Amino acid sequence: MPPVAEPRVVPPLFTGLSAFPLTPLRQDRVDERSFVHLVERCAAAGVDSITALGSTGSYAYLHRDERAAVARLAVEHAGQTPVFVGIGALRTSDVLAHAEDAQAAGAAALLLAPMSYQPLTDDDVVDLFAAVTASSSVPVIVYDNPGTTHVTFTPELYGRIAQLPGIASIKIPGVPPDPDEAREHVSGLRDAVPEHIGLGVSGDAHAARGLLAGCDSWYSVIGGTLPELAVAITRAAQQGRPEEAQELSARLQPLWDLFAEHGSLRVVAAIAEQLGVAERSCLPLPLRGLDAAARARVADVMEGSVAPLCLH
Amino acid sequence: MPPVAEPRVVPPLFTGLSAFPLTPLRQDRVDERSFVHLVERCAAAGVDSITALGSTGSYAYLHRDERAAVARLAVEHAGQTPVFVGIGALRTSDVLAHAEDAQAAGAAALLLAPMSYQPLTDDDVVDLFAAVTASSSVPVIVYDNPGTTHVTFTPELYGRIAQLPGIASIKIPGVPPDPDEAREHVSGLRDAVPEHIGLGVSGDAHAARGLLAGCDSWYSVIGGTLPELAVAITRAAQQGRPEEAQELSARLQPLWDLFAEHGSLRVVAAIAEQLGVAERSCLPLPLRGLDAAARARVADVMEGSVAPLCLH
Repeated sequence: MPPVAEPRVVPPLFTGLSAFPLTPLRQDRVDERSFVHLVERCAAAGVDSITALGSTGSYAYLHRDERAAVARLAVEHAGQTPVFVGIGALRTSDVLAHAEDAQAAGAAALLLAPMSYQPLTDDDVVDLFAAVTASSSVPVIVYDNPGTTHVTFTPELYGRIAQLPGIASIKIPGVPPDPDEAREHVSGLRDAVPEHIGLGVSGDAHAARGLLAGCDSWYSVIGGTLPELAVAITRAAQQGRPEEAQELSARLQPLWDLFAEHGSLRVVAAIAEQLGVAERSCLPLPLRGLDAAARARVADVMEGSVAPLCLH
Repeated sequence: MPPVAEPRVVPPLFTGLSAFPLTPLRQDRVDERSFVHLVERCAAAGVDSITALGSTGSYAYLHRDERAAVARLAVEHAGQTPVFVGIGALRTSDVLAHAEDAQAAGAAALLLAPMSYQPLTDDDVVDLFAAVTASSSVPVIVYDNPGTTHVTFTPELYGRIAQLPGIASIKIPGVPPDPDEAREHVSGLRDAVPEHIGLGVSGDAHAARGLLAGCDSWYSVIGGTLPELAVAITRAAQQGRPEEAQELSARLQPLWDLFAEHGSLRVVAAIAEQLGVAERSCLPLPLRGLDAAARARVADVMEGSVAPLCLH
């Protein structure tokens, strides 16, 4: 049993499973019916929170009015499940406008990735988070996603940002493959930030290991499209059944391999299209959907690895 | 003398110096007066073309209406100098909208960098350029800027895109430090694309070497703010005075060092602010201007290296 059971002071809002639904498009417009369906599936599966307009929700590609509408729909259809909303943009004034819209829609928290075109300095990034926390009345989640933002967060940068009042959680990009090293990594990050800051793992392939290594939450791509599966892994990890969490994750290795090869977004979009919960192709151009060969592999993985685990 | 004097079929529009003015902001709005002043300086200095809304023009941070206004102002105040306009965006439909606005404003060509948030495949990039060329009636310049777009262009990808009707020029990110290798590099790229495609060097530190290695043009950051200097280097290279071009560039090494350290945009913004042609701080947040120590170095370089070369 991992010796990680120290008493934590992270608010329950920032623990457990946060599901990231796609924002499916249809002929370059938000497919609201499909988005609502995805949100309702997440809520029905009992996820702990829903994050609309994450990277999986294509926030970076959507206009202000589209994003405001998506935030409203998410809150409206999530029932009692709290909704977090992604607010990132290249320009600080746009980020602040998105934050305002998300709060007006009823977001329980804001998710902010420091998008970049020109490379950002640490001071740029800290100032951006300071501007958002100073003008927002709901908590802010720091979104560390180097593959899309090209910003490198160091523990020291986490620490500077986490000092800001209003910062609640950090979405970290993954943990080392070895369980002991993973535990050490998470514990090292804990030392860099105040006690109340939640640490949430992302990169679905890392999720079971991350939760078992002491992460408070899982910011989950598959949680938005295959929510029962993500709930099962999360509950196993939270409720003292580490072998079950690891076993479920291991059986999904063919899915993680597809994620590594094509990026999780294109794969999960293909899954949603195969399940009939989004129309093909639901991603914003220039992002093409997977080609026929990759879609055939997705279908195989769905049938061989995912379907046997979906118990209903 | 470099043995590069083969007859070329590149249209004159895509040869010589293209100057990239800043789009200065003032309290988060485009400072139109300052932008117009920069455009007029470029035209008066005799640059061969002006590229509005390049990376130096902060296109990625500006809204559609702001970009349309900037394109109109550039054409209106450039006199006889042709104006190219940057149209990049994360979403293809936005790129097409910008292309439409730029053409309505009177752009002589469109400059397109494949901006990315999710990593793009080569097929994504080719389709993006195909969509733009198919719907535009002016030539398109391929903007290869890996530091900001995180797209890696191979010669093969250049070749695929350059086949599209309407592609006129490729803005390449630099050339090798050794003059012979630089010539070989440019000649290798020539072999990858049709004869009529212009190759333009960028990365100002590479410009003299790139022109002498056979590039048709220089897409120039300093051309937008210190246009006489860029004209002098370009004419020396074009008119058979290679030593003079190299000497001018070598004397600007302290400036290239600042570019390497802070990025050319922040440095050239500080220069514009010191020259009084833009108000401080003229960059879109979250991009902070240089700090006091770096500004002092910029002032030293302006006084010690730039001023002695500005002959008027």
